[in-house]
Amino acid sequence: MLKYCAEIWDEVRSKRPLVHCITNYVTVNDVANIILASGASPAMVEYPAEASGFAPLASALYFNLGTLTGEQEAAMLEASWAAASRGVPIILDPVACGVIGRKVDLIERIKSLCKIQVLKGNAAEIKSLAGLAGQAQGVDSLDTGEGLAEACLQLAAEDKLIAAATGEVDIVAEENRYACILNGTPLFQSITGAGCMAGGVIAACLGAAPEEAWLASITGLLAFNLAGERAASQAGNRPGTFRTLLFDELFVLRGEELVKEGRLE
Amino acid sequence: MLKYCAEIWDEVRSKRPLVHCITNYVTVNDVANIILASGASPAMVEYPAEASGFAPLASALYFNLGTLTGEQEAAMLEASWAAASRGVPIILDPVACGVIGRKVDLIERIKSLCKIQVLKGNAAEIKSLAGLAGQAQGVDSLDTGEGLAEACLQLAAEDKLIAAATGEVDIVAEENRYACILNGTPLFQSITGAGCMAGGVIAACLGAAPEEAWLASITGLLAFNLAGERAASQAGNRPGTFRTLLFDELFVLRGEELVKEGRLE
Amino acid sequence: MLKYCAEIWDEVRSKRPLVHCITNYVTVNDVANIILASGASPAMVEYPAEASGFAPLASALYFNLGTLTGEQEAAMLEASWAAASRGVPIILDPVACGVIGRKVDLIERIKSLCKIQVLKGNAAEIKSLAGLAGQAQGVDSLDTGEGLAEACLQLAAEDKLIAAATGEVDIVAEENRYACILNGTPLFQSITGAGCMAGGVIAACLGAAPEEAWLASITGLLAFNLAGERAASQAGNRPGTFRTLLFDELFVLRGEELVKEGRLE
Repeated sequence: MLKYCAEIWDEVRSKRPLVHCITNYVTVNDVANIILASGASPAMVEYPAEASGFAPLASALYFNLGTLTGEQEAAMLEASWAAASRGVPIILDPVACGVIGRKVDLIERIKSLCKIQVLKGNAAEIKSLAGLAGQAQGVDSLDTGEGLAEACLQLAAEDKLIAAATGEVDIVAEENRYACILNGTPLFQSITGAGCMAGGVIAACLGAAPEEAWLASITGLLAFNLAGERAASQAGNRPGTFRTLLFDELFVLRGEELVKEGRLE
Repeated sequence: MLKYCAEIWDEVRSKRPLVHCITNYVTVNDVANIILASGASPAMVEYPAEASGFAPLASALYFNLGTLTGEQEAAMLEASWAAASRGVPIILDPVACGVIGRKVDLIERIKSLCKIQVLKGNAAEIKSLAGLAGQAQGVDSLDTGEGLAEACLQLAAEDKLIAAATGEVDIVAEENRYACILNGTPLFQSITGAGCMAGGVIAACLGAAPEEAWLASITGLLAFNLAGERAASQAGNRPGTFRTLLFDELFVLRGEELVKEGRLE
Repeated sequence: MLKYCAEIWDEVRSKRPLVHCITNYVTVNDVANIILASGASPAMVEYPAEASGFAPLASALYFNLGTLTGEQEAAMLEASWAAASRGVPIILDPVACGVIGRKVDLIERIKSLCKIQVLKGNAAEIKSLAGLAGQAQGVDSLDTGEGLAEACLQLAAEDKLIAAATGEVDIVAEENRYACILNGTPLFQSITGAGCMAGGVIAACLGAAPEEAWLASITGLLAFNLAGERAASQAGNRPGTFRTLLFDELFVLRGEELVKEGRLE
């Protein structure tokens, strides 16, 4: 499987897919920079009247519900409708959906307009969407990850999508199977936006390989985690330095290194 | 007093308080990262209907009036009301209040709904709120700091709160006493958001020690200034590098180092 | 000409002009930090009722249409009107105007209220405003730059302004002449916000030398490109590190170095 991931990863750089993002304003700069470091082209377009015209031009749409303004909410609905008409794949990050009910409502409305290809959240968010009790503190998951693969499989089956959960081990499920990604670093928790950036990298991969949503999601998380692993090995216990090196490492990462250093199960 | 500060600082990391922020979009990423580096858990929740439900879950609220949108303004009022009912402490940063009247109006409305525990601004902002003429250029203070301790004491007495003013020397006053923090670096003025980040670190300390608002405010400024001092000693005259190292240094700073290197008066 | 640029560049630091920005939220932190690194004072003020009162206090206004909210749109119109009454120079960055029609409409409305001194875009944006077909992908230009000087001259003549186009070679035109800036680095394309930051540095120069809009625009782009060149020579192939060093290098850059290392044609 690593060989297929390597191919998708190198295709991001050769195809340079346009990724239309509507994302939270806390980490939006990081998301744009990580998509560029992946080799894709980010565009943050979130005024409602602009989003509907722009979405059909994109290779993938990334919705992140972190700091959802009224304008962003309307823009996501407009973009969903427009994307559906052209088959543009959508990845959605339901930030803090277990704590804030408005986000669940919006997800339901988006699902009524279009197909979500990939749903990516932390353990608490994924469990909460699967109807289970996840442990969260604000936007952070405190969940142990027990039963997480089952929650992913359940969501994947119910909604016919890829369900990806990030944590100590990342899980990417489609209806009847799932993969675990063992690469990564605890330093991701020392910076804001690791989850948001992971979503951006998945969106870049999804834009390069829209027919292979499961593999593209695995590829995105694998590449991001591997870059994090490499950055952490140089950064020691320094989160500011780690964050800088994360962009450096993702930018130079190539498919052959995914094959050599990737650890999937 | 340094010993008490050291205890509070180490408690931030052990208690990991949830800090609900409604803050300006210029430096929001820095604020989230500095709260994480302090050992606390930031959550930026600022849609009005979300803020009222979220505020009671938090250990501290941080309001920063930097780039105040209409939604943020409504969210602060909702959160104030909700926080008051549960005794969640609030720290407010009145960015540019001496230049933009709308901010003073909002502060008055917030005060009518809840108790502000800590008011933290630069010299020009604090003087302006005390009815004195501070020297400002836009969001930056050009004030010499003369008479600043008196202004802090006056505000603290009038509004029964902690008044903290940042500058070459930081001052933290409650009704009848004040402390001066002598640590720091002029490099703080070479980057945007030093004041906003200082507010975030105070909020983290306030969340860990809500009963000790005066000491918590001193602790936050002391830790932030000390991390800045250490970062500056490595960064030389380089603001980009300084900013990266600031997160690194705060992340590894422990209470015992506050005792050794802190300079209070 | 380099000698005049050197003088303007050093004046930014000695005069510390206040630059009022209404800019996109993706790169707003970078724009604030780069204006500070230039020696000027940034203030992001974009609530409509605040913008009209604040604009007349500024030495220059920077409008960037990147992620234009409804409030920002109203604020730009308020600030335009207020700036016109006091002769505050305006630089406008028409991000993605070739792809999103709403931005062209807003530019027309701003022009009906005030004089735009400097229009700065990438090759695709400038060509699009000149009525030519530029090649763009989302917010990024894919244009070769052929015929770009002519497009700049045409816009400069039609609208009586400075037209600046960024790319492999930057072009700055006024009605009857133009200059080319040969310094720079391809690493600018590996990070988000290089164009936005370039606009911020031009605004700082325009604030220091409002009577010399053409030279100020050349100075801003020259200084920014030279800092980028120096940062790139240390950063190798690492965009995260490059971005950090860009602020470092601009902060220490002085006029005499523009004379020594600047390459204009």
